[in-house]
Amino acid sequence: MTATPHPHPSAALAEFAANLRFEDIPAPVLRRAEDLLIDCLASILAGANMRPIQAMERYAAAMGPTDGAAEVLISRRKTSPLFAAMVNAAAAHVVEQDDVHNGSVFHPAAVVFPPALAVAQALGRSGKDLLVASVAGYEVGIRIGEYLGRSHYKIFHTTGTAGTLAAAVTVGRLLNLNAEQMLHALGSAGTQAAGLWEFLRDAADSKQLHTAKAAADGLTAAYLAKEGFTGASHILEGEQGLAAGMSTDADPARLVDRLGERWALSETSFKYHASCRHTHPAADALQQVMREYKLRDTDLAEVITHVHQGAIDVLGPVVDPKTVHQSKFSMGTVLALIAREDRAGLAEFDAALGNADVAALRTKVRMELDPEVDAAYPERWIGKVTVHTTDGRILQGRVDEPKGDPGNTLSREEIEEKVMRLGMYAQAASEGEIRDLINTIWDLENIARMGTLLPNR
Amino acid sequence: MTATPHPHPSAALAEFAANLRFEDIPAPVLRRAEDLLIDCLASILAGANMRPIQAMERYAAAMGPTDGAAEVLISRRKTSPLFAAMVNAAAAHVVEQDDVHNGSVFHPAAVVFPPALAVAQALGRSGKDLLVASVAGYEVGIRIGEYLGRSHYKIFHTTGTAGTLAAAVTVGRLLNLNAEQMLHALGSAGTQAAGLWEFLRDAADSKQLHTAKAAADGLTAAYLAKEGFTGASHILEGEQGLAAGMSTDADPARLVDRLGERWALSETSFKYHASCRHTHPAADALQQVMREYKLRDTDLAEVITHVHQGAIDVLGPVVDPKTVHQSKFSMGTVLALIAREDRAGLAEFDAALGNADVAALRTKVRMELDPEVDAAYPERWIGKVTVHTTDGRILQGRVDEPKGDPGNTLSREEIEEKVMRLGMYAQAASEGEIRDLINTIWDLENIARMGTLLPNR
Repeated sequence: MTATPHPHPSAALAEFAANLRFEDIPAPVLRRAEDLLIDCLASILAGANMRPIQAMERYAAAMGPTDGAAEVLISRRKTSPLFAAMVNAAAAHVVEQDDVHNGSVFHPAAVVFPPALAVAQALGRSGKDLLVASVAGYEVGIRIGEYLGRSHYKIFHTTGTAGTLAAAVTVGRLLNLNAEQMLHALGSAGTQAAGLWEFLRDAADSKQLHTAKAAADGLTAAYLAKEGFTGASHILEGEQGLAAGMSTDADPARLVDRLGERWALSETSFKYHASCRHTHPAADALQQVMREYKLRDTDLAEVITHVHQGAIDVLGPVVDPKTVHQSKFSMGTVLALIAREDRAGLAEFDAALGNADVAALRTKVRMELDPEVDAAYPERWIGKVTVHTTDGRILQGRVDEPKGDPGNTLSREEIEEKVMRLGMYAQAASEGEIRDLINTIWDLENIARMGTLLPNR
Repeated sequence: MTATPHPHPSAALAEFAANLRFEDIPAPVLRRAEDLLIDCLASILAGANMRPIQAMERYAAAMGPTDGAAEVLISRRKTSPLFAAMVNAAAAHVVEQDDVHNGSVFHPAAVVFPPALAVAQALGRSGKDLLVASVAGYEVGIRIGEYLGRSHYKIFHTTGTAGTLAAAVTVGRLLNLNAEQMLHALGSAGTQAAGLWEFLRDAADSKQLHTAKAAADGLTAAYLAKEGFTGASHILEGEQGLAAGMSTDADPARLVDRLGERWALSETSFKYHASCRHTHPAADALQQVMREYKLRDTDLAEVITHVHQGAIDVLGPVVDPKTVHQSKFSMGTVLALIAREDRAGLAEFDAALGNADVAALRTKVRMELDPEVDAAYPERWIGKVTVHTTDGRILQGRVDEPKGDPGNTLSREEIEEKVMRLGMYAQAASEGEIRDLINTIWDLENIARMGTLLPNR
């Protein structure tokens, strides 16, 4: 690295993405890409029956072709890659179980894998091609998210904005765009980049629209570049480019940070619990205490979670959750599920709504601001709990990295378990089908030509 | 009007659009909507063979259905309304002959009529429905453009951003969305709104992508709302909404400015000459002198154009135009065509490139900053020229509103002439077909069910 600003960061990213070869990517990065892919596919299946996803699929069926080589995983319908990418990307994000890159506050899987899979199927690309394209999308998208920075994230959903460029790079790689075409694709993607947080106030469906459109618009940008359609060459750093319009603290050095040496994909975290990420450190710390001392939920008199301010800001208002979705933002509910079920997954949240025992346990949990935890955030998400038992013991639990973070990641066994649970959740696939799906992804590197992942129904 | 801010401007716009009835719209506004529609259709046909439009059409053919009720005018292909709207909207903007609303610096036709036509055809709506939907799109889109203001336009292409919401309202009206659904459509449209000026530096194709995507994304937002997909309820004025992210001088009062009383559609200007709008006032003033004194081009010794600073900024650098497109930004070329041909249309520009007489005449034209003209801009675009003739006369020309502005608008005869020229330009339709098309639009109000506008080839 050097203190001299790169003269053309957008071109450096385009060149990196266009020239990345399978042989350049370390084996652990490839394995991790497979982990993230199967994690994403499971999230898609889990989102199959959600209202906004069903609405999106009806729209796609009305506007898109009724046949094609790309697979809408939630309905097993075949169509053109545009619509398969759109619906699968919407579904990937809806149950809030898809991956997250902490530093860029960006969910790469939902916008990278759906277009990668759809285009690989449409063009009959190999599993290796799919992997290379996905890695390129992660590396470029994460750096763009880091570049756009905190000022951007205050108003814009980075997964929608940076995600459009990540999807363009992913698809561009599968289309074998050269560096010049890839730069055009970045230009056309960046000038479509969008996604505002305003929907949060209404709990509206826009989060799913953002991932759907990032995937679809990035795909559009790449295909147009292949057709000779041109874009701005400095879309990221130019005077009227993405950062000029949507960020006040953009740092161009982040765009080209150790390209080809640092693998940002490997920094990406899995979501283990099916709840707001701010609940995860405390959930892990309580689980540690429960397991170590072989406690039952009835042993708990009080649980104090020692948290960062952000957790209090987001979770504090949720005292009496009225919906399943809202209960995922209730620290008391999450910890009650850990205490009772040793798990806070999708099925546990569904069953817990209105349960009197869960509600009673919820009132025994409270949050306290902890200076050490708060100072470490957001680089590190430390979990600390103090448990008072009904027999008068005071027990401490602590995790320094929540389950799913790179330093405390999931094993393949744990990933398979999560995938099986998510995959079965909406009955969008049978146990055998999910087992086959897992095996397909573990063998991805050896697939010569990507076909459909699920059998016809 | 009142000094009290409207409590919910986004909802006021949604309600206006959902409840607008044919009977509410004054007849002159309806006639003007027909004028703008045929003007747009002619622009679409004129853009048929342009490289970026052909690229977009190949993309649409690859991703969309091969059949449907919506008509891609440039190829006469039928497909779903999404792709017809996308390609027609791209084509509408490419020859720079489509309309403009001065106050909002917004080109409404390109983003309103293509989705209106496509959806009216797909759903078999009436000509009256098409008119009401288009008027709703103009009224809402123009007010949003005015609201986003000059700070927005510095970085963002308003036709791309405000255009997405204009398209959503237009399509929403054809889908008979109620006010609540229309507000969801605005939310989903606003969170997709995008379009950066950065492409200007490369003369890249993004301007066409912006109109195409505004039309397509607005259509998507409206159809999703019909399917129950929700959006932010304060997308325009909210704390993390469109203006919060993309404007520093947004004035919410502009959003609800005399809704239903002021018809912003009627303020929209036609482009008469096929050149940069900054050349139009001087072109009209020279044409006045040429006609009044019955001059020929060989009579001209020198032409001084008295202009606003913006004209010097944009046109000043173009001394020796190398392409047809660039020659449309050359004041000397435009005035040479007026002097020689009494017209600066698409065909004249094509023929003028490399013509030695045009080049010689070009050197006799110069721009001078004029305090009166500069002070009146941008509310009024005054044209002033001083002509020195070879026989020693000094003649003055002046127009207070360039041809095509509301105070100096085109007659139906002039519109028909423009439409005929544009329609024939790319040989995308025959003279008879264009004549039929004109007659269809003049009779739009009486069409019970919109079908295709052009016969199969």
